[in-house]
Amino acid sequence: MARHSAPPPAPPDTPDEIDQRFYQAMQQGDVDKMMALWADEDDIACVHPGGSRVLGAVAIRASFEAVFAHGAVEVVPEAARRTGSQTWAVHHVVERIRGMTPQGPQDAYVIATNIYVRTLGGWRMLVHHASPGSQVEIAGLSESAALLH
Amino acid sequence: MARHSAPPPAPPDTPDEIDQRFYQAMQQGDVDKMMALWADEDDIACVHPGGSRVLGAVAIRASFEAVFAHGAVEVVPEAARRTGSQTWAVHHVVERIRGMTPQGPQDAYVIATNIYVRTLGGWRMLVHHASPGSQVEIAGLSESAALLH
Repeated sequence: MARHSAPPPAPPDTPDEIDQRFYQAMQQGDVDKMMALWADEDDIACVHPGGSRVLGAVAIRASFEAVFAHGAVEVVPEAARRTGSQTWAVHHVVERIRGMTPQGPQDAYVIATNIYVRTLGGWRMLVHHASPGSQVEIAGLSESAALLH
Repeated sequence: MARHSAPPPAPPDTPDEIDQRFYQAMQQGDVDKMMALWADEDDIACVHPGGSRVLGAVAIRASFEAVFAHGAVEVVPEAARRTGSQTWAVHHVVERIRGMTPQGPQDAYVIATNIYVRTLGGWRMLVHHASPGSQVEIAGLSESAALLH
């Protein structure tokens, strides 16, 4: 499953960069690249869509190995809301995931909260919480914006 | 649905305090108390279990009014993982929710990521992302801990 590339890339320098690398690791189905992005602490937590809570690096690696066992994930993050400061960042996104069905390729939608923290080793992922969404999420974004502005 | 109490309480002084007030507002089904806890910015986001993404104070208030229209929520946060710094906090919890069924009271489980930020007006809620869990979540905690330690 895992592929090794050398030399290892420099640590992510911004929240946008780690966000980009997180989705690249998904798109490449690369467990090593994925796990290199997570913070080195017990409190990291991951919830896959419809799945249970996964805590700690060992269990999170196993969960991504299970996901990537079905192949790379054709995912595009959209409708992002980004907030944070110099040391932490929250990216709230809608993931559009392309899947193959008997009727041809179809998109599914996932709501994700990604929490990043700045460490001595660059930006790292602290929490990825994903849950099943729908196309409403994309439409809902402009709707909520209209309510607010 | 909303009840008014005077005088208003002092702003939450710690992440634990806002966490406690968040679940009290749920337990009391009090929309005003609930909304007083959210940060005063456009980027606040809320995902109810199985629901879509709700952005901004107006839409989030409406979503809690809809939840509380069925009555207060008998919720107990458990199995908390807390992390953060002086200015932000993430509480990752399993909510045990007591519901009445034809077979008598039964517990349901929800996985929640709560993100709090410190503002000039005390600690406020930035994101509440909840998704359906199961009793596995409670068992899973000790399991993951066993793997790690």
